[in-house]
Amino acid sequence: MNYAQESLKLHRQWKGKLEVTPRAQVTDKTALSLAYTPGVAQPCLEIQKDINESYNLTRRWNTVAVVTDGTAVLGLGDIGPEAGMPVMEGKCVLFKAFGGVDAIPLCVRSKDADEIADCIALLAGSFGGVNLEDISAPRCFEIERKLKEKCDIPIFHDDQHGTAVVCLAAVINALKIVGKSMKDCTIVICGAGAAGVAIAKLLHKIGVKDQLLVDRHGIVTVEKADNPAKKEIAQITNVNNREGTLADSMVGADIFIGVSAPNIVTQDMVKSMNRDGIVMAMSNPTPEIMPDLALNAGAAVVGTGRSDFPNQIKNVLAFPGIFRGALDVRASDINDEMKIAAAYALAQIIPDGELTADYVLPEAFDERVGPAVAAAVAKAARETGVARI
Amino acid sequence: MNYAQESLKLHRQWKGKLEVTPRAQVTDKTALSLAYTPGVAQPCLEIQKDINESYNLTRRWNTVAVVTDGTAVLGLGDIGPEAGMPVMEGKCVLFKAFGGVDAIPLCVRSKDADEIADCIALLAGSFGGVNLEDISAPRCFEIERKLKEKCDIPIFHDDQHGTAVVCLAAVINALKIVGKSMKDCTIVICGAGAAGVAIAKLLHKIGVKDQLLVDRHGIVTVEKADNPAKKEIAQITNVNNREGTLADSMVGADIFIGVSAPNIVTQDMVKSMNRDGIVMAMSNPTPEIMPDLALNAGAAVVGTGRSDFPNQIKNVLAFPGIFRGALDVRASDINDEMKIAAAYALAQIIPDGELTADYVLPEAFDERVGPAVAAAVAKAARETGVARI
Repeated sequence: MNYAQESLKLHRQWKGKLEVTPRAQVTDKTALSLAYTPGVAQPCLEIQKDINESYNLTRRWNTVAVVTDGTAVLGLGDIGPEAGMPVMEGKCVLFKAFGGVDAIPLCVRSKDADEIADCIALLAGSFGGVNLEDISAPRCFEIERKLKEKCDIPIFHDDQHGTAVVCLAAVINALKIVGKSMKDCTIVICGAGAAGVAIAKLLHKIGVKDQLLVDRHGIVTVEKADNPAKKEIAQITNVNNREGTLADSMVGADIFIGVSAPNIVTQDMVKSMNRDGIVMAMSNPTPEIMPDLALNAGAAVVGTGRSDFPNQIKNVLAFPGIFRGALDVRASDINDEMKIAAAYALAQIIPDGELTADYVLPEAFDERVGPAVAAAVAKAARETGVARI
Repeated sequence: MNYAQESLKLHRQWKGKLEVTPRAQVTDKTALSLAYTPGVAQPCLEIQKDINESYNLTRRWNTVAVVTDGTAVLGLGDIGPEAGMPVMEGKCVLFKAFGGVDAIPLCVRSKDADEIADCIALLAGSFGGVNLEDISAPRCFEIERKLKEKCDIPIFHDDQHGTAVVCLAAVINALKIVGKSMKDCTIVICGAGAAGVAIAKLLHKIGVKDQLLVDRHGIVTVEKADNPAKKEIAQITNVNNREGTLADSMVGADIFIGVSAPNIVTQDMVKSMNRDGIVMAMSNPTPEIMPDLALNAGAAVVGTGRSDFPNQIKNVLAFPGIFRGALDVRASDINDEMKIAAAYALAQIIPDGELTADYVLPEAFDERVGPAVAAAVAKAARETGVARI
């Protein structure tokens, strides 16, 4: 199938992949007087008395804004907010289909981090959470940080944290197969954009000591880091202050995580890794190294971002359940503990007996995924004090 | 029925009067690849090439933002953005039920006109239009003006223009009953808030020469106008530069339009009007004068804002069809000509033979209303050059 042409044809038929549907019917005068004036004044007054009632009397409890500025849409780059909308609508479809979440796409006509954060923060009373999407690095870090400061609802940049959660789940299960412990592993993360930085932070949080972040200039060091996000990561990675190329970084590594560019990893690099190497080559659509090449070079477990190879690292395994769980307990934040809980819940869906090198992550359509992730996230929210119900 | 308690109960059951529904199904891998990645890249690229394609390939063509800051919600005043949400959700239900429009409620946490306008303008690429709602005067005029300057989509403050359109339609038909011509009439508008100012402007636009705007200080004059909006209106009304009270203003008037406060019009004031007076007493829920009192004092036609009296001036007769028409031709604006066309279309739904003093406006559930208003608005948009298709 020519996905591009078939998708375009379908988009012309759909004329939008979302619509807004009334849950209250206004079929006669009485119904109108109850859903709208004069009856509606009473729920308004209840919310005025106690703003928490906005979660009971309006759709806020189940509604998330999906926000982009269109600067890093798929692999297409800065195509503008309007051109990003088909992806945002698609994301909202997935939110509903896999998490039961009502998601509203908002494409912002600005590239200024303050403007974007101010705009979305002003709307926070309309939503139970905000999912940031396809915003270029390093601006995405600043926008997320500013929004978290301003808002009392969860702010979650899926390209960072969704990817990190699913990648972590894949690594957790891959490590079971090769019989290694995460904390003893040396990990190379290639790509210091949104996903790479978030993965490094999450691995640090769960106790990984020895990891190297690599960008186009080589191994990131505090001195060479060319933006504040990388500098922050450099301080918690690269404990031996190593310098060098991607090839240098991979010598002796246990795990390679690629969120960078096509075909930049060679078979020799994989051969230089520690025994039973794990390779998550997530550059999309063309991985850092094709799975057959990595396996032939000795890798024990290989994942990619593609649906036509085993072990697809796909965000749809995480974000619907994460938001479902956060919304269910009216969380004020989606913190690291909740992300880690999501990753372990996702990994544990596959029982040890079923785990193979070709099956370290469940399928997108595995109906256990959403509820399991949501339950783990809600529990972690309660345990870390960010649940409000 | 106790509308307040019954409505509150229903709102607790509904848990939100809207939801977001996918129009594209993602039930298997192929469907996912077409609605989302990788297929979705193609519609994105088409929009990047031609931004007008956003109206063909996303829901923008049918989507309106319903925006409030919660400062003038119903008659409840400044209750805050979250407390305004039940009304906004209700408005969105009406948009879909009566106009087929997908409407998304956005409650803004700001009372600063610039902040609100900047915020909504940044989101204009996501919508085909913006309906402003329940924003206090005179801020609403400034917010609307700034947004119109910044945006290439229609900006419509329903409390101003929706009310003005329906009121004008009622007056058009009432004048047929009493056999007077609009241009020869003396009109008193009591209340110089959002609705009063908009009604005065629209009447001026259609050629009414002799009208007086009255606020709590009496007849508005250029000298006494206490905000820029009133000063602007003072310059196009009160041609004889009259001063005085509400009672003074009504002596000899043909039409009284009230958008002010309960019970401020006496029977003596109505008696002082010209023969066959028309009284539109829209203060809600308690009119400026109760219909029976006005009729007993000699008024020929009386309308109110209430559903339990004849001739209810209700905005639902206008805004769904106005936006339907504007969206259908991808209008860049909703201008005065479109509003006037909407009023005449609304008035003409009732054939002359059916017109009575108790029936000058169609019912909300009259299925002819939406299509007739939409067609007239679309035609006027084409004739005034604001239609883009």
